[in-house]
Order: sequence, then structure tokens, then C-alpha cells
Amino acid sequence: MPVAINDIRAAQARLAGHARRTPLLTSPFLDAIAGRRVWVKAECLQHTGSFKFRGAWSALTALPEGARGVIACSSGNHAQGVALAARMRGLEAVIVMPRDAPTIKIANTRALGAEVVLYDRAREDRDAIATRVAAERGLILIPPFDHRQVIAGQGTTGLEIAQDAHALGLSNAQVLVCCGGGGLSAGIALALEAEAPQMQVRTVEPEGFDDVAASLRAGAVVTNPTRAGLCDAIVTPAPGRLTWPILKRLCGPGLVVPDTDTLRAMGQAFARLKLVLEPGGAVALAAALFQPDQIAGEDVIVIASGGNVDSAVFQRALQREGADATG
Amino acid sequence: MPVAINDIRAAQARLAGHARRTPLLTSPFLDAIAGRRVWVKAECLQHTGSFKFRGAWSALTALPEGARGVIACSSGNHAQGVALAARMRGLEAVIVMPRDAPTIKIANTRALGAEVVLYDRAREDRDAIATRVAAERGLILIPPFDHRQVIAGQGTTGLEIAQDAHALGLSNAQVLVCCGGGGLSAGIALALEAEAPQMQVRTVEPEGFDDVAASLRAGAVVTNPTRAGLCDAIVTPAPGRLTWPILKRLCGPGLVVPDTDTLRAMGQAFARLKLVLEPGGAVALAAALFQPDQIAGEDVIVIASGGNVDSAVFQRALQREGADATG
Repeated sequence: MPVAINDIRAAQARLAGHARRTPLLTSPFLDAIAGRRVWVKAECLQHTGSFKFRGAWSALTALPEGARGVIACSSGNHAQGVALAARMRGLEAVIVMPRDAPTIKIANTRALGAEVVLYDRAREDRDAIATRVAAERGLILIPPFDHRQVIAGQGTTGLEIAQDAHALGLSNAQVLVCCGGGGLSAGIALALEAEAPQMQVRTVEPEGFDDVAASLRAGAVVTNPTRAGLCDAIVTPAPGRLTWPILKRLCGPGLVVPDTDTLRAMGQAFARLKLVLEPGGAVALAAALFQPDQIAGEDVIVIASGGNVDSAVFQRALQREGADATG
Repeated sequence: MPVAINDIRAAQARLAGHARRTPLLTSPFLDAIAGRRVWVKAECLQHTGSFKFRGAWSALTALPEGARGVIACSSGNHAQGVALAARMRGLEAVIVMPRDAPTIKIANTRALGAEVVLYDRAREDRDAIATRVAAERGLILIPPFDHRQVIAGQGTTGLEIAQDAHALGLSNAQVLVCCGGGGLSAGIALALEAEAPQMQVRTVEPEGFDDVAASLRAGAVVTNPTRAGLCDAIVTPAPGRLTWPILKRLCGPGLVVPDTDTLRAMGQAFARLKLVLEPGGAVALAAALFQPDQIAGEDVIVIASGGNVDSAVFQRALQREGADATG
């Protein structure tokens, strides 16, 4: 049975009072750059600094009775979401993370009470490690995107967008979503199909990791190589088994942005919104600001999906922003 | 007639739908540092990046009929608040700013449609300049803090805190407020006196600019020299004629923080809240995190009052935060 709007509504009820209802922010300066009104859903303000807490909480509140713990594979944001949700629910959590994940994400995951198992992205198979540890210790695997309750949890972001947009009298807009495996994009697309049917999700990916855009163009799943990139949160190889049919049915053409524009967007979020965005959380804003011709309509809604960035990377973005401001 | 709670309630009605209702954020990492629960009112997410928009909008919506424009003196945040509020109200705005104000604040004020008149902080009298220009051009002066409607506007922050605290079952907390001339502190203190009487405002100032703390200790207004400082937004020489009696009656002892702690607090807001704070907007968080013995109770509420910071200053804070994280 495919994920449906009722799964998202049920997840929203479970998230109420536990996940943060994030604000929709604007700036006249961003509007001027984009040439249209830009509405930014600040999911970097979600617990653990990314939307991933929604899916984690949704999944962990739908576990079978008697579950003692969970295991997850993640470059960082899903890890932190699962770790905090597990701690809040009194469950054990083991996270399998690549050794080259940002330092802050590994440290935060441990500080949130999870046990971290590191692996080598180039030489080891994380899924095999997770399956083995799960079997040995009786843990339930929570996949980062290809999971009914995870998609339902991320979809609550879309219900909030629909509600806020209605209150603003905004019915017609493209909704730009930072896209890795497609859990957030698929969840939001399902929510908007039900609650704001004139809106359309557009996935946004970094150059070199545009498997979803290529798949949407081809009409069938296309894979890109797995390797590290600036936008570490969303460098997945392909859309998921559950997410792909939803993306294919509901999304417009995928957008793809170069890393230089992503860094510029991080600088603009710093200067104009007072938000800290990580590269993978800034690609949608980058598309809105720097690819206006690829987008239709007078309003665009952007998901700023996460803010877990090492200070060294953030400083690269600031140096660029500073250059812009005086240039 | 002194400023009263009804002025704040009336301002809140005028602000509804125009000012942003800012969120109250938390992080388990900040709680661990502070040794108590830390609630952060993110006023850096307010329009123009600081709480000053509230007071500006309150004042500009209470002008006499037929007013054609306004003039304000400000190192930057009041300037931007007045500039945007004036543009939204279709009024002319002239802002008198010190030549050494942060570049971003001067540029933003101009970009928001205001005319900027620069002066030399050491050699010129900004009030004399403002009085002359106001008379020549028929503009109404909007003072940065010592003005009934400005204080009422800033006080709406306190009404929101009281409402959110009630919803959280939180009745007893000290409320730490970044303090320059005392408009925000006085407004919040009046709002809490009416709506959350067990809460107490504690002003927080940078070392070397602790005129309010010294005045509270002495029981009478004490002045410190006017000069530039890291916390440029709040380096005022003395509490105001209207704000001082309110601060004296309602606030606990003033807190004073060194600039090194302010930079550390900016790094923590970056890492843990995904918020950009300027130095003057981070002193209250600095006190909560690094002076826990000066504060009473299990919960502390902190106003993060602004985020308009040049990227060079922000990078100083990040370098400190990075050092902490690996240390």
C-alpha cells in the first residue's frame, strides 16, 4: 500500500507538541534578487537542526510494542534526528555513519546519546553493517527515506506550508525542496496534492548528484556514483523504491545547482534571514535566487532543510557573501 | 503619564499581521552548558533582523494625521526598523548614523529606501543634526528608546513570551534582555508585570558599557562614556528618562558580560540554534550560558535581540566556536 495523505495526517498528530512548527520567513532583499516573492520554510530551526527529526519521531512513535532500540545509517542529519527521538522515547539507538561525515554531525549524534559505528564510504557497505548489527542486537532499522512512516513525518512540513499559505492567501506557487533520496520531497508533494493542489514540488539537487532530476527526465530511475560532496546531506545515489513513484507522479522538472551558487545562498541566508544553512539545506534557496528563469509564478516557497554545518565550511560561504556585498 | 500595559496591548493590535511572531527555541546542548533549561526568543528573525521593527512600527502607526516623514538617530538596528516601517507606511525616512556603524547596517538602511546622513561619533552631536534636519524638512523625530510608543512596541515581545510560557506551563523564570537604552527591557518588564508577574527581567550589557547595571546598583542614573565597541547596537551612555523609572522599579540586578563570552555565545547560537546573532544581540545568551551562578531558577528566558552582523565579526565568533568544538 503506497504512502497516503492519511499517513501524513496521523504523523502530524503524533508530532504535535514534540516537533517544532517552523516559521515561513521572507526578506525584501531576497525578493529583489529572485525577482519574485520568496518564502523560506526554516526547517534548520527544527530540533537537531534539520527536518529529519520529523521523520524520525514519526517512525519511532509507530514502532511495534516492545521494541527496545533502533539502528540507522546516515551521513548526519537522519542520525541526529533518530538519536534525539530515541532518547526522548527511551529507546537505544545505534547510528552507522561514514568516517568523512562533518565532525559536528558525528559529535552531536554521540552527544545525543547514540552509539556511533563509523565506516569507510569507499570500501565498506553500510547496509551490510547495519543489517548485521541489527540482527546481533535486536534493533529495528529506520531507513533515512525509503520508509512509510519516515516519508509521512517529512510530509508534515507540507501540511504546515499549506496551512500557512492559505492564511496568506497564497494558493499558487512552486515549492522548491532540497532532495537526497526524496523522502522530504515525496512527503511534501503528497501533502500539497491533498491540501494545496495548485502548488507543485520541484526537487533541487547539487551538480554531480542529480539522480532525481535525471530520473524525472528519463521517466525511470537513474543512478549517480556515491562519493563525498559539499552538500553532504543529499549526495544519495538514486531516488528510493517508495519515493520514486511519488516524485514521478507529482513533481515538476528537477532543478540542479552548482556548489558556487549554494555557497552564495548560504551567505544570503546569513545576511538576510539570520539563518545558518548547511550546503545541502541551501540548494533550494540557491535555485530560487540564482535560477529564476527555471521557476514559474509570482511566489516561490523554499525549504531551508538543515543547518548542521562545520564552521570552516560556513566561513567559505561568508567570505563569498562578503565579497558580494562590497563588489 | 508613564507607559502602561494598555499602551503595549494597543501596540500589539497594531503590529498584528505586520511584525513577525518570533519562536522560542531550545537546545539540549545549551541546557547542558547553562545547567538549566534555556529558552531563546529569536528576535533576530524579526523583520530587518532585530526587535527594533516592533517599536518603529508601533511609533509610525501612532503618528498624527498628515505626518509626511520621520527622522531617527541610530547605529543601525533602529535605523533599519524605522526605514522599513516608513516604506511600508508610505512615509519619507531620514536616518542619522555614525560613520563607524557596521557596513551592512548602513547599506541595508539605504536599500530599505531611507536617506542616510552620516556623522562622526567623536566630534559631532547627532541630536543637534537630527533636530536641525527635522526642522528644515518637517520630519518627526522617532527616538530609539525614550519614546512611549517605541517602548510599547518593544513590550509586545514580552506579551508573546508570557503567552508562550503559559502554554508551556512555565510561570517562574528570569528573563535576560540585551540592554542599550532600555526600551526593550522596560517594555518587556511592563508586559511581564501584567501577564507573568513571577517573572523578572534582568538587563544584560557588555563590559565597559554597563550604565544600566551601575544605575541599578546606585539607585540613580550613572553614565558611561560614548565610544565604539564590539556590541555596537547597545553601547548607549545611560538609561533613558522614560525607561529608567521602569527599569528601577521592575528589574533585578544588571548582568555584565565580557566580549569574549559574547563571541562564544554567538558561536553557540550558530552551532546549536542555527541562528545568526550580532554581538549586541548575544549578550543575554552569553550571561545565561557563562554566568549561571548569577541567575536563579530552573528555567531562564533569553532575548536574542538582533542578527545584523558583518561577516568579518561573525567569523571571529566562528573561529572561537571551532576552537571550542575541537578542544
